[in-house]
Amino acid sequence: MRLIAASKNAPSFALLPVGVTLPVTIPKRLPMRTESHSRATLLREQMKRQQVDALIVPRFDAHQGEYVAPCDARLAWLTGFTGTAGFAIVTPQTIEMFVDGRYSVQVTHECAGEGFGFHHLLDQAPDRWLAGADPAWIVGYDAMLLPPTWAGRFRVVLGKRLKALDDNLIDSVWHDRPPPPNAPIRPFPLQLAGRSPWQKRDDLTQAMSELGADLLIETQPDNIAWFLNLRGSDFSYVPTMRSFMLVRQDGSAQLFVDSGQVTDEIVDFLPAWLTVHPLPEFLPEVERQLATDRGVLLDPDFTPDAVSLRVEQARARMLHQISPLTLRKAIKNPVELAGIRSCHLHDGVALTEFSAQLEQMLPTTELEAEELILALRRRNDGFLMSSFRTISASGANAAMCHYAATPESNAPITARTTYLLDSGAQYESGTTDATRCLAFGPVSPAYRQAYTAVFKAFHALMTLRFPVGTKGHHIDAICRRPLWDMGMDYDHGTGHGVGHSLSVHERPQRIGKEVNDVNIAAGMILTIEPGHYVAGEFGIRIENQVEVVQRHDGFLEFSNLTLVPIQLSMLNLDDLSPDQLGWLVDYNQTIRAKLGPLLSAVALEWMDRNAAALPTHSPGTRSRPRNHLQELTEA
Amino acid sequence: MRLIAASKNAPSFALLPVGVTLPVTIPKRLPMRTESHSRATLLREQMKRQQVDALIVPRFDAHQGEYVAPCDARLAWLTGFTGTAGFAIVTPQTIEMFVDGRYSVQVTHECAGEGFGFHHLLDQAPDRWLAGADPAWIVGYDAMLLPPTWAGRFRVVLGKRLKALDDNLIDSVWHDRPPPPNAPIRPFPLQLAGRSPWQKRDDLTQAMSELGADLLIETQPDNIAWFLNLRGSDFSYVPTMRSFMLVRQDGSAQLFVDSGQVTDEIVDFLPAWLTVHPLPEFLPEVERQLATDRGVLLDPDFTPDAVSLRVEQARARMLHQISPLTLRKAIKNPVELAGIRSCHLHDGVALTEFSAQLEQMLPTTELEAEELILALRRRNDGFLMSSFRTISASGANAAMCHYAATPESNAPITARTTYLLDSGAQYESGTTDATRCLAFGPVSPAYRQAYTAVFKAFHALMTLRFPVGTKGHHIDAICRRPLWDMGMDYDHGTGHGVGHSLSVHERPQRIGKEVNDVNIAAGMILTIEPGHYVAGEFGIRIENQVEVVQRHDGFLEFSNLTLVPIQLSMLNLDDLSPDQLGWLVDYNQTIRAKLGPLLSAVALEWMDRNAAALPTHSPGTRSRPRNHLQELTEA
Repeated sequence: MRLIAASKNAPSFALLPVGVTLPVTIPKRLPMRTESHSRATLLREQMKRQQVDALIVPRFDAHQGEYVAPCDARLAWLTGFTGTAGFAIVTPQTIEMFVDGRYSVQVTHECAGEGFGFHHLLDQAPDRWLAGADPAWIVGYDAMLLPPTWAGRFRVVLGKRLKALDDNLIDSVWHDRPPPPNAPIRPFPLQLAGRSPWQKRDDLTQAMSELGADLLIETQPDNIAWFLNLRGSDFSYVPTMRSFMLVRQDGSAQLFVDSGQVTDEIVDFLPAWLTVHPLPEFLPEVERQLATDRGVLLDPDFTPDAVSLRVEQARARMLHQISPLTLRKAIKNPVELAGIRSCHLHDGVALTEFSAQLEQMLPTTELEAEELILALRRRNDGFLMSSFRTISASGANAAMCHYAATPESNAPITARTTYLLDSGAQYESGTTDATRCLAFGPVSPAYRQAYTAVFKAFHALMTLRFPVGTKGHHIDAICRRPLWDMGMDYDHGTGHGVGHSLSVHERPQRIGKEVNDVNIAAGMILTIEPGHYVAGEFGIRIENQVEVVQRHDGFLEFSNLTLVPIQLSMLNLDDLSPDQLGWLVDYNQTIRAKLGPLLSAVALEWMDRNAAALPTHSPGTRSRPRNHLQELTEA
Repeated sequence: MRLIAASKNAPSFALLPVGVTLPVTIPKRLPMRTESHSRATLLREQMKRQQVDALIVPRFDAHQGEYVAPCDARLAWLTGFTGTAGFAIVTPQTIEMFVDGRYSVQVTHECAGEGFGFHHLLDQAPDRWLAGADPAWIVGYDAMLLPPTWAGRFRVVLGKRLKALDDNLIDSVWHDRPPPPNAPIRPFPLQLAGRSPWQKRDDLTQAMSELGADLLIETQPDNIAWFLNLRGSDFSYVPTMRSFMLVRQDGSAQLFVDSGQVTDEIVDFLPAWLTVHPLPEFLPEVERQLATDRGVLLDPDFTPDAVSLRVEQARARMLHQISPLTLRKAIKNPVELAGIRSCHLHDGVALTEFSAQLEQMLPTTELEAEELILALRRRNDGFLMSSFRTISASGANAAMCHYAATPESNAPITARTTYLLDSGAQYESGTTDATRCLAFGPVSPAYRQAYTAVFKAFHALMTLRFPVGTKGHHIDAICRRPLWDMGMDYDHGTGHGVGHSLSVHERPQRIGKEVNDVNIAAGMILTIEPGHYVAGEFGIRIENQVEVVQRHDGFLEFSNLTLVPIQLSMLNLDDLSPDQLGWLVDYNQTIRAKLGPLLSAVALEWMDRNAAALPTHSPGTRSRPRNHLQELTEA
């Protein structure tokens, strides 16, 4: 799943989970364009009552994740904008919208009408825009919805004119606001999780002790779900629940969730050192536990500023740093790794069957293809849901990195089009994310050249060995170089972390140009996904998931997880080195061997025709098996 | 010239010019080991008088450069330690030494005797050591000798116990302190500099205007020499002079130098908008020019903390950022580039003659070889001096990255040893720095394998194309990868900036693992110098200088500057790809064509025998010209 390159001008934004490619939490009732106007009018009356001239409305909820529940889709309710990142600033006359490059076109469609202003979130951030606005304005914000890093940026330019509000002004005028999600929480059994909450708690309290933390304030749902071996369904695509957690140095802890979500089964499952409280008790409970001499650890990129302000007021020792749970969750344990490997087997079957069945369905459409991959994945044991909105893109639509098919855009897929599928699933045993390009007939020389370069880029990173201490920004260019050699590049990151039946975009590890201060370590899961995009023509991306493993010589390398064949017909095989060609043949042969017993006859036939073993190949040989492959590519 | 990898634990240290490999400014009289003791006793008496319990003694002078004049070699005078980076903390009982990995052995030899403690500068920095020392100590420092970044680190742990001293306590007890250097300053003519101080001033005042700076405080001698088209000889290896400069937004400026250095010729040469003042007037003049509403720009990694403290006291608007002159000096103008290219021609002749003559001198020694290269360079027009202490290292001595031959260590060079020469020169038209390995007989399989991997690493970066916006930490691993593939690496940076008849280590550009926030841009000069070192066995490094040029497609690439053949006999030619082999042959052929008319018969014969054109080679061919080369390599 493609990630957006964060700008270094927005350091705290760059720390957010990498963005999803399209709006995904669409409110049930899209606001009418005239509705935005009347809603803004209601809101401005509320702002006057609270003596606020301008109001910051982020897309964030109190957990700063990629997805928000419908009841938290305040930005969409107010403005119509449904992207997964952005800000509005409601002023006395206008609504100023701040979105990144993914959404610069979409926002103008969704927020049509009088009174909107549009800005690039990274090039002209909302804090800098406010620096040039009316210097008399009092600017309000809901301190539960901004993390300290963002609130701090606004405070730098506004000083005392920035006003933290106790109540959310939108909620006070949103009369048909959806109820909070209330689905029951599920236990995540030890045979899937690998480690018990008891073991994880002992690790955590030791880490807290080393950091001088008496209290950990944890507000990231995936960290909480991982720590307590729980799963939920409050968000699209991520099986977690809206929740907060407090953990004390003595090992006792409190979970804050919607009361209706805790069944008797969960009460029995939860450890004795954990008590459960309703969500609204979180902030009062934080206040009760603060004291001057206590060390309080919170992640300034994720924790609500309301919490940070209370820690300051109580003069506790604030430890602003990445959550120890984020770091521990990133290193998968052997049981998690085994689960991840096994779900890739079934996901590979679904994607290989998809390639074969799609060919048989031609001509078809992007939305039908999207339905097909979902239907094929649903057959798999342990399937929960998609891990993000599928990108099913035909021809030039694939050149839009953020594309998702709609009834209006739904393009045909034929023997003459190229096609890109970027999709993934949540299984009980892991999370998948893969991208493949497919062609059902000859492709243009430009496509072939670019596809070959993208494959070389992909191969360059898949085969890398690197020393301990290497970070994501060190190796990004190793992937890009084969494209650079051709004067090509791609304007997104190269790889992101992936959770274990959790978020498909998991911090902290990441491969990209931006500085990432975390060493890539054994047990981490990453994607590798170079691409190339020509507007109006085509888009290409090849994406696998890999596990970081330590070699006997102490170096690290990537061990492949994704078991989906790579189609050969779009490659200029003559341009591949013997190493590249040999690796590709071995890759497809390995998948043939692993998936073979599970594939239908149709899928097997597709695979043998499109990703065949080369009869002249033997590992290590430098002879080029041209004749057989040229038949394939010139078919 | 090899550079040390700076640790991310020491961010401000990482911004210093990359270190030189050996002590170079050796005080005329090395302190006896008993002398250190009596000097420390004198110093402690002085400390008592000033009510200071501990004293920070940096190796820095007031300019924070790589070399210091003998009168500023306070650390060496006090402790005997002659390395180019380090700190001492003089306590009531001990002298605690803090040096980086280059000097960890050397420091224990030079500082032998009672009362010394030894620490790693990056792993246990002096500020952190002081955090654990006696909490009652008042700790003094000379605020002219620490930049604000270092003083800030000490202030964080010491608070008000850190005491800025007006006088240097060492100077007050150093009775035979050498006089300051007093050699005349030379004009650097426009036909070498390419741009006049007038043009550079207009650029600078515009940059200052954009940054909101009313006053620039410049304390880096190479920035001042470049800006005013002057050169000096106050330091070893860098043709600059101890100097400070103030530039005002209105375009007027003041230069502070030792009065005796300004001849009538220089007075005539200097622009009318510049006045000249004695060095000691610098700080009083800074004080006079500060005012509450003025914007003052200074580089916090280089400017004395004494200046920064005065800016704070005057409540001026402090702009802590990299000097605009540092950024402008880094992008060479066409005249500077032409000069740099031309001096490489003559330097290449010297190094090629060296290879041939050294072979004829066998058996010889490291020190004789060092004399030979200096003698050969002296023949070149415009030669000024070496650009750093030559590394002339035979066999296992080359495994010590910081090696420099001494009468004691002076190892033989024979037909059975491998040899490494890392050397460079200051010419009027530019600065050179190159490393080559030489072998005069067969080499071990281990050496051959490592040399081949180092050549591949070198080739990988020499041939890179990359987009605008690329930084040094992005491409470092592209160089390392061929070594990583073999389980090898090197523990130093990959490349550093080089000045134009200025410092051989020039900021800000750099290629290495550490984050470097400057885009690599057309007109910059860099080295590319991968290596591999096996302690007790051998050391290998291949180093060229390159110029960054923009291609017609907008990408950037490195254009080679160094014209020194690469000897073929140590390579496993079978392990090279056709591209690598073709590039190498073209490289040596190009040098043969350029240097040919200038070389002696002996050098030409050496070159044809050791770096020959391959008769079967034609550009672009994929056939491997094995037979001819194998003869060479198996000879």
